[in-house]
Amino acid sequence: MSFWIENARVVPGDGSLALPRAAVRVTGDRIEKVTRVPDDDGAERIDARGRVLMPGFVDAHTHALWAGDRLDEFEQLQRGRSYVEILASGGGILSTVRAVRAASEQELADRLVARLNVMLREGTTTVEVKSGYGLDTATELKMLRAIRAAAARSDVAVVPTALLGHALDPDQPDLVNRVLGETLPAVHAEFPTIAVDAYCERGAWSLTDCRALLERARALGHPLRLHADQFSALGGLDLAVELGAQSVDHLEATAPEGLARLARSRTVGVILPASGFHLDDRYANARALLDAGGRLVLASNCNPGSAPTSSMPFVIALAVRKLGLRVDEAIRAVTAEPAALLGFSDRGRIAPGMRADLILLRHTDERALAYELGGNPVDLVIAGGRPGGPSPGSASP
Amino acid sequence: MSFWIENARVVPGDGSLALPRAAVRVTGDRIEKVTRVPDDDGAERIDARGRVLMPGFVDAHTHALWAGDRLDEFEQLQRGRSYVEILASGGGILSTVRAVRAASEQELADRLVARLNVMLREGTTTVEVKSGYGLDTATELKMLRAIRAAAARSDVAVVPTALLGHALDPDQPDLVNRVLGETLPAVHAEFPTIAVDAYCERGAWSLTDCRALLERARALGHPLRLHADQFSALGGLDLAVELGAQSVDHLEATAPEGLARLARSRTVGVILPASGFHLDDRYANARALLDAGGRLVLASNCNPGSAPTSSMPFVIALAVRKLGLRVDEAIRAVTAEPAALLGFSDRGRIAPGMRADLILLRHTDERALAYELGGNPVDLVIAGGRPGGPSPGSASP
Repeated sequence: MSFWIENARVVPGDGSLALPRAAVRVTGDRIEKVTRVPDDDGAERIDARGRVLMPGFVDAHTHALWAGDRLDEFEQLQRGRSYVEILASGGGILSTVRAVRAASEQELADRLVARLNVMLREGTTTVEVKSGYGLDTATELKMLRAIRAAAARSDVAVVPTALLGHALDPDQPDLVNRVLGETLPAVHAEFPTIAVDAYCERGAWSLTDCRALLERARALGHPLRLHADQFSALGGLDLAVELGAQSVDHLEATAPEGLARLARSRTVGVILPASGFHLDDRYANARALLDAGGRLVLASNCNPGSAPTSSMPFVIALAVRKLGLRVDEAIRAVTAEPAALLGFSDRGRIAPGMRADLILLRHTDERALAYELGGNPVDLVIAGGRPGGPSPGSASP
Repeated sequence: MSFWIENARVVPGDGSLALPRAAVRVTGDRIEKVTRVPDDDGAERIDARGRVLMPGFVDAHTHALWAGDRLDEFEQLQRGRSYVEILASGGGILSTVRAVRAASEQELADRLVARLNVMLREGTTTVEVKSGYGLDTATELKMLRAIRAAAARSDVAVVPTALLGHALDPDQPDLVNRVLGETLPAVHAEFPTIAVDAYCERGAWSLTDCRALLERARALGHPLRLHADQFSALGGLDLAVELGAQSVDHLEATAPEGLARLARSRTVGVILPASGFHLDDRYANARALLDAGGRLVLASNCNPGSAPTSSMPFVIALAVRKLGLRVDEAIRAVTAEPAALLGFSDRGRIAPGMRADLILLRHTDERALAYELGGNPVDLVIAGGRPGGPSPGSASP
């Protein structure tokens, strides 16, 4: 089946110039051709009426699978209770861990499908989803299986990541050794090519323990990712570069010299402005990374504790205000660059042969995508060549 | 025609307790009854499946009618050019004035209808729209007529305001006198009950000129509103209170003592956090106003220069983070309080006899409305008893 989208302002996503008025033909799940006007072939036409057509968003860093919620905690924070007090009374990440442990794989899959539907409606067509709220082998596997099951039920393409070094558990003083000796081998047996990730931060995994996990994962053939430098620069950035990690994520605490070292490597910098906005108004120096020639990805960091968003337009709006990015730089960082980070050569750009993951905005100027605050600017989503996506409310809450 | 919304978490909007599981019957354009479960009457039922049902948002301060755009200016600001330089080269509000003068009444009405459709989709069912980009009699009247025409074409209820004292025009040194002597009488003749508004600020209308305009408007029977204390506290707050204005809007520069005086009056404080976020991270002290017993309204301030948003969920999310409001306080400030400000006793609350302006969120907990950032959390809009609103992209851009 083929159809055209005509009269569109086509924003290709990879930094090449926008086409002010063009037509795109979709055949099956592919972009077949991009022309000035549609061929006279009788295929159905969707009239974009000058609106922007761009690649669907690729959200390359999320913790979008969780159970329970952190709304009580948010209320307490607003009323002046401190994070430390909340953690001490059992809140924080461990409350999510308890809820995930208590949920069945089916319940977790249903929750993620509902979240994926929200993401799809907001223009995200490929998303990475991490495990990491299990802190034990059975629950990490349960999360990864739930992610796999949800992916099969959604039009969003889902890439799982095994975040095996996310946190410490006061009830498990031997957690690091167990992850190395039991969890990693079990994950490897069932998900041999999955990326392995850790969180290098005070109160989470130390530099030494991250090295142990990532070296072992690399030896097993897993691609690597690493959260580093969110609050403290402990050396995670250089570890990620040394081990050839695909990305190092957060970087709020990274000095320009560190970003310059990153820029000289093949490791991508993933920056997460929504958690900066939610937590403490601290942002990574994306400008310095780009100016040093580095590769930049922007992602939502969607998670219930520090980045309650799955809106890539909101991430873009933050990026141009708080990170000093131009709109075209921000767009590239949510389309072509994260597609490459996740190993895809068939998406994140509008060109013949690419996967037909496309979004039609209500805007006729892509700068409005960064300028407008809040709301959902996406009029139409095409995922794998299929227009529409789910209607609001169609997934179980 | 009647239908039920069942299995909803009903958030009434006026501060009364939420009903964890309730049913609402809509008949014609009214809420007919609120029960625990639907009557067995054979009427159609919409299953809310636990989702939040609340009053549609009432956005009581917008400049939602404009022509042209300010995207070039935003790009220049991002690249480091100052507001002063931009103004000097013809940018700023006067670029919007030129575009509005150049547009026909039809074009203006079409633009506003498109914006109203976006607002409706995002849950706003009643909105105030100001004139103020004309700075001459003919153009102010053109704007007000376009607002009236757009209102007739939209399911959003629209309340126009004559913002006759918005700005100064370097080409019209006699502007204030002309507004008093010509524009106000012309507006009065055609819109005898419209609210009259002004902007009391350095570089805009002085306190003296605001007093002259508002006293004359009040003498003609017009309700009054006043922008004051956005950047400088020039005395506009006390002027508004003295003249019995319905509201005084902005208040970023108001000291707690001023808010206490406001709280002792019948004038409502309207606070606009989105322009604070967009411009300079300065916010009015809403907490102090509420703690002093004042009445608070939150609004979008939707306009192309300083508040590029029509998302009331985004306003709520800012309010709980930057203004120290509880979620229930923020919800009241975007439903029952602005309905009263605009003179409506039939909306902003869920109760028998109220207008059926309702929104069904994807959330099952109203705190998520404030917690989540970006996106559109509204699954279904019912305006005047009619479900659906316009589909995305259905209005001409």
